[in-house]
Amino acid sequence: MRSAAPIPARHHVVVVGAGFGGLAVARSLRRADVDVTLVDQHNYHTFQPLLYQVATAGLGSEDVAHQVRGIVRKHRNVRFRLGRVERLDLDGRRVHLDDGQALPFDSLVLAAGSVYGDHGIPGVREHAFVLKSVHEATALRSHVLRQFEAAAHEPETAADGHLTFVIAGAGPTGVEMAGALVELFRVLRQDYPELAAARPRVVMVEPTGTVLAPYGPRTRAYAERTLRRRGVDLRLRTGVSRAEPHQVELSDGSIVPSRTLIWAAGVRANPLAERLGIEVDRGGRVPVTESLHLAEHPDVFVIGDMAGVPGSAERPYPQVAQVAIQMGKHVGHVLKARRAGREPRPFRYADRGQMAIIGRGAGVAELAPGLGGGRFSGFLGWLAWLFVHLIYLPGHQNRVTAFGTWVYNFLTYDRHARLLLDEGERAAAAARAPARADDNVPRLDRAA
Amino acid sequence: MRSAAPIPARHHVVVVGAGFGGLAVARSLRRADVDVTLVDQHNYHTFQPLLYQVATAGLGSEDVAHQVRGIVRKHRNVRFRLGRVERLDLDGRRVHLDDGQALPFDSLVLAAGSVYGDHGIPGVREHAFVLKSVHEATALRSHVLRQFEAAAHEPETAADGHLTFVIAGAGPTGVEMAGALVELFRVLRQDYPELAAARPRVVMVEPTGTVLAPYGPRTRAYAERTLRRRGVDLRLRTGVSRAEPHQVELSDGSIVPSRTLIWAAGVRANPLAERLGIEVDRGGRVPVTESLHLAEHPDVFVIGDMAGVPGSAERPYPQVAQVAIQMGKHVGHVLKARRAGREPRPFRYADRGQMAIIGRGAGVAELAPGLGGGRFSGFLGWLAWLFVHLIYLPGHQNRVTAFGTWVYNFLTYDRHARLLLDEGERAAAAARAPARADDNVPRLDRAA
Repeated sequence: MRSAAPIPARHHVVVVGAGFGGLAVARSLRRADVDVTLVDQHNYHTFQPLLYQVATAGLGSEDVAHQVRGIVRKHRNVRFRLGRVERLDLDGRRVHLDDGQALPFDSLVLAAGSVYGDHGIPGVREHAFVLKSVHEATALRSHVLRQFEAAAHEPETAADGHLTFVIAGAGPTGVEMAGALVELFRVLRQDYPELAAARPRVVMVEPTGTVLAPYGPRTRAYAERTLRRRGVDLRLRTGVSRAEPHQVELSDGSIVPSRTLIWAAGVRANPLAERLGIEVDRGGRVPVTESLHLAEHPDVFVIGDMAGVPGSAERPYPQVAQVAIQMGKHVGHVLKARRAGREPRPFRYADRGQMAIIGRGAGVAELAPGLGGGRFSGFLGWLAWLFVHLIYLPGHQNRVTAFGTWVYNFLTYDRHARLLLDEGERAAAAARAPARADDNVPRLDRAA
Repeated sequence: MRSAAPIPARHHVVVVGAGFGGLAVARSLRRADVDVTLVDQHNYHTFQPLLYQVATAGLGSEDVAHQVRGIVRKHRNVRFRLGRVERLDLDGRRVHLDDGQALPFDSLVLAAGSVYGDHGIPGVREHAFVLKSVHEATALRSHVLRQFEAAAHEPETAADGHLTFVIAGAGPTGVEMAGALVELFRVLRQDYPELAAARPRVVMVEPTGTVLAPYGPRTRAYAERTLRRRGVDLRLRTGVSRAEPHQVELSDGSIVPSRTLIWAAGVRANPLAERLGIEVDRGGRVPVTESLHLAEHPDVFVIGDMAGVPGSAERPYPQVAQVAIQMGKHVGHVLKARRAGREPRPFRYADRGQMAIIGRGAGVAELAPGLGGGRFSGFLGWLAWLFVHLIYLPGHQNRVTAFGTWVYNFLTYDRHARLLLDEGERAAAAARAPARADDNVPRLDRAA
C-alpha cells in the first residue's frame, strides 16, 4: 500500500523552475520551518552554460543534466513535482499544472528563466536554432552533422551553404559557440575525406561595434583578435534582417547562403511573466521590490532572468547564473526572516566578475572591482573557466565525466559525441509506430 | 571548392549496416584492393549489449554509441554513407537509398541485424518496449521514470500498475534487464519519499521451464536463484497472451496490471531480408552458402542476425555479436581470396562461450568446450563480463566513461542518468514549433 502525498500543513513554498535560481531557493530553505515544492517541466536541472559543448559534440547530452530528485533528496522538507505550469492564480494561491492538478501555496517563487527573443526579425522564430535546453543542443548538434553528411554526398549543392554556419550575437554565448564550432570543424575534417577541399566556416554577426560587450576593452580586443585568428568571419555593426531556410539576410544588405542560423542575440523572460497580469519591461521581466516580490503580492517572488529592476537599482541585473543564485538565496533569507518576525535586508547583487571561453587554451575572466578587478586571458582564463564550471556543475558523476572528457578532448583534440541523435530521426521513429495513450514512443517491428 | 565524391573504379563492396558484422567486414578489408562503402541509417554504431544499462539509467545514451566515421577514418579505402536502404536491385547491382540516390556495387554484404518479433501476440507490437536502439533505450528509461512520477502524485492510481514492470522472455536480455531494473528501484526508493510504502516490482514471464535456456544446468539454477533472491517475480512456463496499455494478460489466464511490457522474447531478421525475393526461414533469415553468400548471387553476402543456415550447418547460429563478427571477418576473407584467385575456406563458427550479467556482483560466464569449458558465476562472472564488454565497446572515450561510471555506480549504488529525456517530450517540443524543410527541430519562443 502506498500513502497519498499529504498536503503540507506547514507554510508551503512553491518554486517554479529548477534552474540556478530555483535550486538556490530550495537549498536555502532546507532547514527552515517550511515545506518546499519545486516544480519543473523536466525531471532534471539543465546546466545551461555548457549546452554549447553539447551542441558541438564535446560533451554528451546527459553530462549537463542532473535529476532534480537526486539534488533535493538530501533535504527532508523539499519535494519535487514534475509538471508544466498552465496558470497562476495569485488570489486563490494556486499554481495550476498542465495535468489538471493544482498546487496550493503560501509563498510562490517564479524562477522559470528566459527564452530567446527574436526582436521581431522575420524568419528567426521559424528557422533559428537556440541553446536553452538539452533537446535544443542535441538538435543543433545533429543539424550541424547532417549538413556535413549532405555536403559529403551531394556535391552539386556545394555552393548552397551547407557548410556555412551563421551565429547572431557576439555575447558570451555566441563567442563560446563560435570558438567551439571552429574546433569541431577540425575533427570533422578528418571524418569527411570527401570534403577535403571544402572550407566550413562560421560567420558571426553583431549589431554593436564589439564582441563581449560587458567586458573591458582589453578583454574585448583579445577576444576579437582570437576569434579572427581562429578563422571566425566576424562582422561587427551588422545584424540579421531576415532568416530563410537556405540563407540569412544581413542588415548591410548582403546575403549569406546558410542552412544554420544560431541565435545568441538576446533573451526574453519566460512568457509565464506575462501571465501575471502585471506590466512587464521591454525584456518581458517583472518589476520586483528590493525583497524580490511583487509590490501587490508580498508572497509572490520573481527571481533570476524573470526579475526586472529590483527596488532602488537603476536597471535590471544581467541574466546570468550568479544573479539567479544570489536572488534565490535572498528569497530564502526573506522567507526565514518573516517566519522569525525579523525585517529582511534588501537584495544587493554582489558582482564577482565574469568569464567566457573562446576555445582551447583561450578564456577570458574579469574579477569584479570589489574582488581586486583582476583580468586573465588566454590559458589562465581558460583554466579558471574550466575550474569554476566544474565546481558549479551539479552531480559528482557529471563532474567526473566532464573533467575526464575535457582532459581527453584537450589531449586528443577529439569530440566524441558526434552523434546524429536528433529530433528528425526520433520524430520519424515515432511516426512509424503507434503511440500509447500516455506517451509517445517507437515500438516493435521497425526496419533497421 | 569541393570535389565531388568519385564513383570508385576499384571493386566496390557495399556493406549495409554498421553493427558488429558490418564493422568487421570493413575492418577485414581495410588493406584489400577494394573500396568499401558502409551504409547505415545512423551515423553511429550502437553497442546493443549495453542498451539495457541505458534503459535503467546506469549509462548515458551517448556512452553506448560511437560515430562510424570516427571508426572507419583510419582505413583509407572505407567510406561511410548515411542513409536508409529503400530497395535492393541485385541484377542491376544497385542499392537504392531513401534520399533517391543509388549506390552501385560489385559485391554486397547485408548486415542489417534483427528487429523484435511479436509472434503474432495481440497488442505486443503496439504496446511493448524493446531494446534495439539508443532511442528505444532512452524511451524505455523515460517511461519507467514517468511511471514513478505519476505514482508519486496520483495516489488514487496506486493500484493500477504504474510500478509493475513486466518482462517477457528470460533469455540474456530479459535477465539483464530484470536485474538492472531491480537495482534501479533501490535508487528510486530514495528519490521518491512519497512512495516509501510502495513496492515496485518486476514480473518476468518465460514460456519455457528455465531462464537462460542456452546455458548449462548449474548456471541456469544459479541465475534463477539469484533473480528470485533479488526480488524478481519469475514465472516459468508462462507467456504473454495479450498486451494492453494498462495490463498484460498471461497464458495462465492471470492478468497483471502494468503499463510497461518489455519485450525480450525473440527477434526476427531485419525485414530487408524479405525484400530479396528469396524464401526466408521462420525467423526471417536468409539461407546462405558456406561462403555466406546467396546461392544464386555469389556477390551478395548475408551475415549476422540476418543469415540463416549456412552451408552444411544443421541450424542457424545464435544471433549474437560473436557470430556477426566472425561472419564479417569471413566475408573479408572470401573477397580477398577471390581477388587473389584462391579458393576460400568454408565458414565455421568458433564458439568461445557466452556470458550474461544478473546484477551487482552477479554474472555468469561459460567458456566453450574447445576453450576448456570453464564456468564462472557470481563476482568472477561479473568481472569477466565487465572486462569483455569494455574491450569490445568502441571508442576510447566511451570505454573511459563506461569504466568510470561502473566504478562509480558500484561504489555508490547510484544510477546517474535518471533523466526523463524522452520521445513524448521531444515530440511535444517539435509540435510546438514549426519545422524546417530538411529536419524537425524545436525552435524559439517556447515557455520553459
